[in-house]
Amino acid sequence: MRYASRIHQMVGKTSKAWDIHFMAAEKRIRGEQIILLTVGNTDFPSPKVAIDAVHDSLAAGRTQYSPSAGSTPIREAISRLHARKTGRAIDADQVIVTIGAQNALFTAALCIVEPGDQVLVPEPMYPTYPGTIAAAGGEIVSIRSPAKNGFHPLIDEIEASIGPRTCAIFLATPNNPTGAVYTREELSTIATLCHKHDLWLVSDEVYDELVYEGRHVSPSVLSGMAERTICIGSLSKSHAMPGWRIGWMIGPQQLADHAGQIAICSTYGTPTFLQDAAVTTLEQLPRGVPELKAAYRRRRDRLCDWMDTVSVLTCQRPEGGMFVMLDARATGLSAYDFAKGLLLEEGVAILPADAFGESATGYLRISLGAADAVIDEAALRLSRYAERAARHRAVS
Amino acid sequence: MRYASRIHQMVGKTSKAWDIHFMAAEKRIRGEQIILLTVGNTDFPSPKVAIDAVHDSLAAGRTQYSPSAGSTPIREAISRLHARKTGRAIDADQVIVTIGAQNALFTAALCIVEPGDQVLVPEPMYPTYPGTIAAAGGEIVSIRSPAKNGFHPLIDEIEASIGPRTCAIFLATPNNPTGAVYTREELSTIATLCHKHDLWLVSDEVYDELVYEGRHVSPSVLSGMAERTICIGSLSKSHAMPGWRIGWMIGPQQLADHAGQIAICSTYGTPTFLQDAAVTTLEQLPRGVPELKAAYRRRRDRLCDWMDTVSVLTCQRPEGGMFVMLDARATGLSAYDFAKGLLLEEGVAILPADAFGESATGYLRISLGAADAVIDEAALRLSRYAERAARHRAVS
Ligand SMILES: Cc1ncc(COP(=O)(O)O)c(C=O)c1O
Ligand SMILES: Cc1ncc(COP(=O)(O)O)c(C=O)c1O
Repeated sequence: MRYASRIHQMVGKTSKAWDIHFMAAEKRIRGEQIILLTVGNTDFPSPKVAIDAVHDSLAAGRTQYSPSAGSTPIREAISRLHARKTGRAIDADQVIVTIGAQNALFTAALCIVEPGDQVLVPEPMYPTYPGTIAAAGGEIVSIRSPAKNGFHPLIDEIEASIGPRTCAIFLATPNNPTGAVYTREELSTIATLCHKHDLWLVSDEVYDELVYEGRHVSPSVLSGMAERTICIGSLSKSHAMPGWRIGWMIGPQQLADHAGQIAICSTYGTPTFLQDAAVTTLEQLPRGVPELKAAYRRRRDRLCDWMDTVSVLTCQRPEGGMFVMLDARATGLSAYDFAKGLLLEEGVAILPADAFGESATGYLRISLGAADAVIDEAALRLSRYAERAARHRAVS
Repeated sequence: MRYASRIHQMVGKTSKAWDIHFMAAEKRIRGEQIILLTVGNTDFPSPKVAIDAVHDSLAAGRTQYSPSAGSTPIREAISRLHARKTGRAIDADQVIVTIGAQNALFTAALCIVEPGDQVLVPEPMYPTYPGTIAAAGGEIVSIRSPAKNGFHPLIDEIEASIGPRTCAIFLATPNNPTGAVYTREELSTIATLCHKHDLWLVSDEVYDELVYEGRHVSPSVLSGMAERTICIGSLSKSHAMPGWRIGWMIGPQQLADHAGQIAICSTYGTPTFLQDAAVTTLEQLPRGVPELKAAYRRRRDRLCDWMDTVSVLTCQRPEGGMFVMLDARATGLSAYDFAKGLLLEEGVAILPADAFGESATGYLRISLGAADAVIDEAALRLSRYAERAARHRAVS
């Protein structure tokens, strides 16, 4: 049978880095005790206020369809949140509620990316981006963000990469996997390029509440950018609610109208009683689960402090987000071989970061979404394995 | 700002028929007592077993991400359901869980429809179809299903409509709005055409448990059709769970793999604890809420019996689904004017069916998803209004 060509453009965009995750997940299913620090889940339970609100909404019989773009209360709650965070008032109609931030990224791509278009994205990048942009028929031109630049993008490369088919820049600040928090200066330069070349800016801000160094700046607040920026957020990270699939996008009115049109056809809306729960959650915990941010920061510091004591390991202490990037090249192993050996010999699963882009080659991504004791145990095994691997290599 | 051309193809695909619904909804918000029989909601509460299962799953902390294609238990539950319904065993891997049937339709279109392709769809059709197919860059060529053919499609028109760019046929049996339940013979002819012209068949079976005359046949059971049929279902209609947004698609393995790839980028999966609740619900109520089907049948009969006593009104007694098609042309009014007058003078909102396609011109669609007493009251007001309108016209 024939498939649409977008499908062929989408496949093969995942790397074997995920093999480690799947191997680890299978081991777990077989009953092995594996420390899984591969993906962006969290050890934190979802807030009680959210769970209670689901019960209340279901008890009230809120199980009918709701408007595809989101009910008025949740759109208003998100517009208030945006105003509180950015100091810019927006209309509730500029908010579209989506199935997590991922669905917002996808909807944004369908709204603004035409087959044959190019989209600039700093790499390392979250690995769904290439498939998302390919689904809309677009192609990514990536901008390097080398470790020696603190994993911040080489801003000078951006203008050089803009061509006649460039339609947008997608970025995530804080970044996944690197945690880089883009500075106001970096974002201002990007904004200037967006103006000059008439580009959209898609700003993925799912980690905006998880910032440990510097300050999160939404590019939508920069002069004249609200009209060309699509801000994307969700409850997944800040509120420990990844499995709830509640996200949103905010853009100029026309963009929101078009995205709402897509929502009618693509999902027909988000679960009604989960929208109700999201409203209550945003009212009670507008900035997320406070202990979660504190815990991630504490774990980051303990893990990086420990790694600093191991001569063959180096950490890039992340400015934000929920991951640590570890450089294990001094062991003589590739990131993939390191991750595989660590899993087989020590039962710890972390992700070779090549999957996220060239600038991450040689690095491994470690999730902070596990209890302190688990992170400590992982650090112990990591250092033991790294030293053994380095010794083994010195001998051979 | 520039938008992708798919957006321009999607807009303007909705008709002013929905004005009646929005007018009615606004009146309700203003506190007016309106009988709303426009959309496909239901007066039935969602099953207690589903609600209890949400509580259990949330209490068990099931709030993490789950696989984008669906967790194994729900894919297995749906594959068992499919086997029980069709007598054909399938692999759980052939099932992709989606955000309601709408998301399955959208995903199917993205998998198989290329920009410039044509898709045959019998009209009247569910109004999200044109936007869904336009989002994938395709265009609908509609097949008439005239009232005098019992709203069944003119099968002979299908072959004549197949051209070099035709890639698929989308159909819904039972149909929305007409309730037509396609016969095995009709589906066999369609299947033969699919083979002959190498077409996909997308079979929207969300109303498969709501059949009052004849028998639901899934075209996937016809000889050689499993490999080119995408079966779409959901809990929305059969289980009174529209606001839960749980649906699925079933197709050949490769299609499922591709759809799973789309799911990663488009939604990153359905809410984890709602998947758990769906498993329990499908185990306990595999064929839906039994009283719901009985109620819809009873309401259909009472409403149609009543309409038969009104000389200027004629009902097409639906074979399935949750809507009745009413012909009010003998009043001398267009469907739109009839609906508007009925709303303004009698506070009853029903939908002019033009929005669903040409074959429905002059008809009005009435939802059966309201309590018996409400349907009775609507019938009373309908007949009163129709007779008044006819008298008024006879005089003038
Ligand atoms: C940068 C980034 N964007 C988007 C997402 C998707 O988040 P959501 O769960 O809201 O769909 C993730 C999840 O890991 C992410 O890391
Ligand atoms: C024919 C048809 N297909 C699909 C749908 C969408 O259903 P779901 O709620 O499962 O997305 C509907 C809803 O009314 C429908 O009538």
